[in-house]
Amino acid sequence: MSGVEILGYAAGAITCLTFLPQVIKTYKSKSAKDVSLMMFVIAAVNEAMWIVYGALLNNWVIILTNAVVLSFSLIMIGLKFRYNHD
Amino acid sequence: MSGVEILGYAAGAITCLTFLPQVIKTYKSKSAKDVSLMMFVIAAVNEAMWIVYGALLNNWVIILTNAVVLSFSLIMIGLKFRYNHD
Repeated sequence: MSGVEILGYAAGAITCLTFLPQVIKTYKSKSAKDVSLMMFVIAAVNEAMWIVYGALLNNWVIILTNAVVLSFSLIMIGLKFRYNHD
Repeated sequence: MSGVEILGYAAGAITCLTFLPQVIKTYKSKSAKDVSLMMFVIAAVNEAMWIVYGALLNNWVIILTNAVVLSFSLIMIGLKFRYNHD
């Protein structure tokens, strides 16, 4: 595997985990009033688009990466509705 | 341009705007205590990795998309430090 490929896989792995710290923080603090619902709705729709794009290209890296981020986005949308208080 | 290409560009354009609603919300509310700093730090480092990846492949779509998201991430990190109160 080339250095460029390794960098791509490493960057993709970190992309998968981007939303995890926000999920953990909101789950622990039980407060989400400062978190933008619109951001995670846009992210969820966008990841669904990327999953379709990956499926059309038969590219499993794109499909799986975005499926993980979509999962975290949907969890955050759920947490936002649950803990949207002051 | 094929339908798949159009979908890819549309998805990329929306990816650029993902963090914008959070920037606007935090700027208006002047409160960011529920927002995860770690999320935006991970995102910024990750986008820098993608920019290097794009540069190594000479792919300007990857470079420019991630440069936009990196800019919003750095703005959010700044807003988090400025408005990290209750």
